[in-house]
Amino acid sequence: MNRDINITRNISLLTDFYEFTMINGYLENKMENKIVYFDMFFRKIPDNGGFAIMSGLGTLIEYLKNLRFSDDDIEYLREQKIFNESFFNYLKNFELLCDMWAVKEGTPIFPGEPILIVRGPIAQVQLIETVILFTINHQSLITTKANRIVRAAKGRDVIELGARRAMGADSALLGARAAFIGGCVGTSLSEAGSKFSIPIFGTMAHSWIQLFDSEYDAFASYAKVYPNNCMLLLDTYNTLESGIKNAIKAFKKEILPRGCRPLGVRIDSGDITYLSKKIRNVLDEEGFRDCKICASNSLDEYIIRDMLIQGAEVDIFGVGEKLITAVSDPIFGGVYKLCAVEEGKKIISKIKISENVNKITTPGVKTVWRLYDNHSKKAVADVITFKDEIIDNNKSIEIFDQHCTWKRKVIKNFYVEKILKRVLKKGKVCYNVPELIDIRKECMCKVSSLWDEVKRFENPHRYYVDLSEKLWEEKNRLISKNKF
Amino acid sequence: MNRDINITRNISLLTDFYEFTMINGYLENKMENKIVYFDMFFRKIPDNGGFAIMSGLGTLIEYLKNLRFSDDDIEYLREQKIFNESFFNYLKNFELLCDMWAVKEGTPIFPGEPILIVRGPIAQVQLIETVILFTINHQSLITTKANRIVRAAKGRDVIELGARRAMGADSALLGARAAFIGGCVGTSLSEAGSKFSIPIFGTMAHSWIQLFDSEYDAFASYAKVYPNNCMLLLDTYNTLESGIKNAIKAFKKEILPRGCRPLGVRIDSGDITYLSKKIRNVLDEEGFRDCKICASNSLDEYIIRDMLIQGAEVDIFGVGEKLITAVSDPIFGGVYKLCAVEEGKKIISKIKISENVNKITTPGVKTVWRLYDNHSKKAVADVITFKDEIIDNNKSIEIFDQHCTWKRKVIKNFYVEKILKRVLKKGKVCYNVPELIDIRKECMCKVSSLWDEVKRFENPHRYYVDLSEKLWEEKNRLISKNKF
Repeated sequence: MNRDINITRNISLLTDFYEFTMINGYLENKMENKIVYFDMFFRKIPDNGGFAIMSGLGTLIEYLKNLRFSDDDIEYLREQKIFNESFFNYLKNFELLCDMWAVKEGTPIFPGEPILIVRGPIAQVQLIETVILFTINHQSLITTKANRIVRAAKGRDVIELGARRAMGADSALLGARAAFIGGCVGTSLSEAGSKFSIPIFGTMAHSWIQLFDSEYDAFASYAKVYPNNCMLLLDTYNTLESGIKNAIKAFKKEILPRGCRPLGVRIDSGDITYLSKKIRNVLDEEGFRDCKICASNSLDEYIIRDMLIQGAEVDIFGVGEKLITAVSDPIFGGVYKLCAVEEGKKIISKIKISENVNKITTPGVKTVWRLYDNHSKKAVADVITFKDEIIDNNKSIEIFDQHCTWKRKVIKNFYVEKILKRVLKKGKVCYNVPELIDIRKECMCKVSSLWDEVKRFENPHRYYVDLSEKLWEEKNRLISKNKF
Repeated sequence: MNRDINITRNISLLTDFYEFTMINGYLENKMENKIVYFDMFFRKIPDNGGFAIMSGLGTLIEYLKNLRFSDDDIEYLREQKIFNESFFNYLKNFELLCDMWAVKEGTPIFPGEPILIVRGPIAQVQLIETVILFTINHQSLITTKANRIVRAAKGRDVIELGARRAMGADSALLGARAAFIGGCVGTSLSEAGSKFSIPIFGTMAHSWIQLFDSEYDAFASYAKVYPNNCMLLLDTYNTLESGIKNAIKAFKKEILPRGCRPLGVRIDSGDITYLSKKIRNVLDEEGFRDCKICASNSLDEYIIRDMLIQGAEVDIFGVGEKLITAVSDPIFGGVYKLCAVEEGKKIISKIKISENVNKITTPGVKTVWRLYDNHSKKAVADVITFKDEIIDNNKSIEIFDQHCTWKRKVIKNFYVEKILKRVLKKGKVCYNVPELIDIRKECMCKVSSLWDEVKRFENPHRYYVDLSEKLWEEKNRLISKNKF
């Protein structure tokens, strides 16, 4: 069944206008078929964390499959009155021919390394820039944030329920997808269930309770309709004086006699740590040890961490606005930069200089090797090399910081993984996007390959991302050449 | 020409799952046709500002026009195995019957007042909650932020160019729409031009310049193709030593001989205040006084304000990631709460109590009056009354703070505007959404009706939003009644 309304969306004009002015310019200069390489990379990990997580690739691939220009699109561009006829013909006959390599979704990623590489005719590589960036930036942001929250919950379930505070429908829908990859067990958004087979959750709002003559009537009516899926919301009037008492009564009168067990109770306001402990006691005393406590109300990783330190008895965290907007650091600053040009058989490395050292790009056609310790199986460093270099895991390797080259470390006894995978070959998809549930598993597994030092929230260890000797030399050569 | 792919999107499942469990529950309890009123309101102005701006209504109306359930939607819900057949029939035959009143887009709005009211059968009013909230929350957030930035720019142009850092496609597209309403003059996003007739802008990226043998060649080639639309990017190598010199040369050799004038130059890095002044001098000396200077690079209202204080010579600000994500405060916390129920001919007010005083809702079917001073034409206060109350502008009115009732103020010599307009009548649209350009004008006009004290960024004056005596009494009666 194809329920994909959104994913097959036409993205032809979801493109910054300067891509079109440049494409028309390349055509006029007969440069449109110059073969170039662009890297996507990012410079800063959100929330000063120790790592980010790649996400959004599946969505991006679906978008690119459907990239073509309708007559309406072309008509709109024609109305701008600055383009030539050859440009419109180019778009009319557009067929994607780019190659693309990308880090798989769910994989930890680090600043400065290519997470996606595109090779192809400049006009095409440029055309898809905007959609690549907003898709990967958005979902990587949310997956990274969700994973922080899930780690703070220490094994307890986290459900994403941010739709109402999302930045439009895609922010809700694809945010739910990204949050699931990051480790959430489900979402409140029905469409995310329908499109992506993410488990969906939801029972009642305060309005349900307000509409009945009494809180007890509301609970009892709900329990009758959903004896197997009964989670009651306790805080409409007074959580301890009224909510939990009426819930217990409804469980006993409407759930147990039907041979069922209640699912849980939810608290959406007040001092959740305090309330949850009181409620746990009442539930246990009344014989509902299996009844779960769900908490929501502007939670994030910091609040959850503190709640657990204080002994909150929460089994399920519902996390909304602070996850779906990544409120504490809502920009994932992935950029997309020219790194090489093909001149006949030769590949010419390109660099973008900046007075800000961190903004200087790493030139050349590259690949990224992740080195894992043979003994602990932990990831110890990423090494960026030219694409044709080989890292031999039978030998030791000396890595060094590209800015402070005296900071060196010899790594022995390791195995390697090349983290960039081919996803497009001459515009055709050559990569099977895994099922979302498998991406989620992969994410958990890959995050557990990181040292705890990299995973802590405060002052995490900076994971090594170094350049090969050869790449470092090329970068320095080009910096010197470009100096003013 | 209908280019509306996005706007006619099916939103049937863009709904929190609990709306469906409640609807099925109302059906089982034969309560689905109970007539209720829900208010949308918000509690906190983003960025501690003095006002927010309503936005997103046009999009919401388009969404609601197209609300129906496909067989696939129903099939998906059936797979959940918790709903009854009458529920599926209800959805299959779904036809929106709600009434809706809303504040017009572009109008300043304040905490605690209803900005949108829905009346209808509970099952329906509940069903559209999620889409109402994410649509209005998102766009009001961005319009409010855009307006802050535009005000900081003091009459200079602001262009929105955040697509690449947006939270998915809708965040880019509808964010551009919202930013335009807030006062931006245009966007970089082509689709926002095509769908909403927003002026689009864009010339070249650094990659254009890097692909030519020299910066001058790149500039000259661009100038030849676009002699009438030539804006050159100066900071690929070195803004002052190379960029501006090559730009002047290209203007003189390729633009002037064609009888054209250059549009401008753009700086995307470095100390923009310093650079812009240097560049202005060079341009003026070389006879290009009409050549504009455009600046971009993580700008927001605070940076722009400081740049202008230091005398930056910038004519056009390009604002991206910090606008499209409303980075400094990315949650617009609009909520949607039951406020009344019809019992036959009677309307019963409903209240939601909370231990947090600010979270207690204002009950009843209400309307909002904006009072303007006859002399200055400035808005002086909003008064929320029961819907059937009248504020007579021939008399004076005493308003008072609902929490500190001794804070009182007599207002005389004023005229009134009821800011909630009918937009849906029994599910049918009865409101013509104005052209976006007219909404934008209305927004400017309405913002200029606010006192400067309300508009400043630091410690703005809290605009009065008070309740009528009658409404205040009803609220207090219900609070007392519900006390535990």
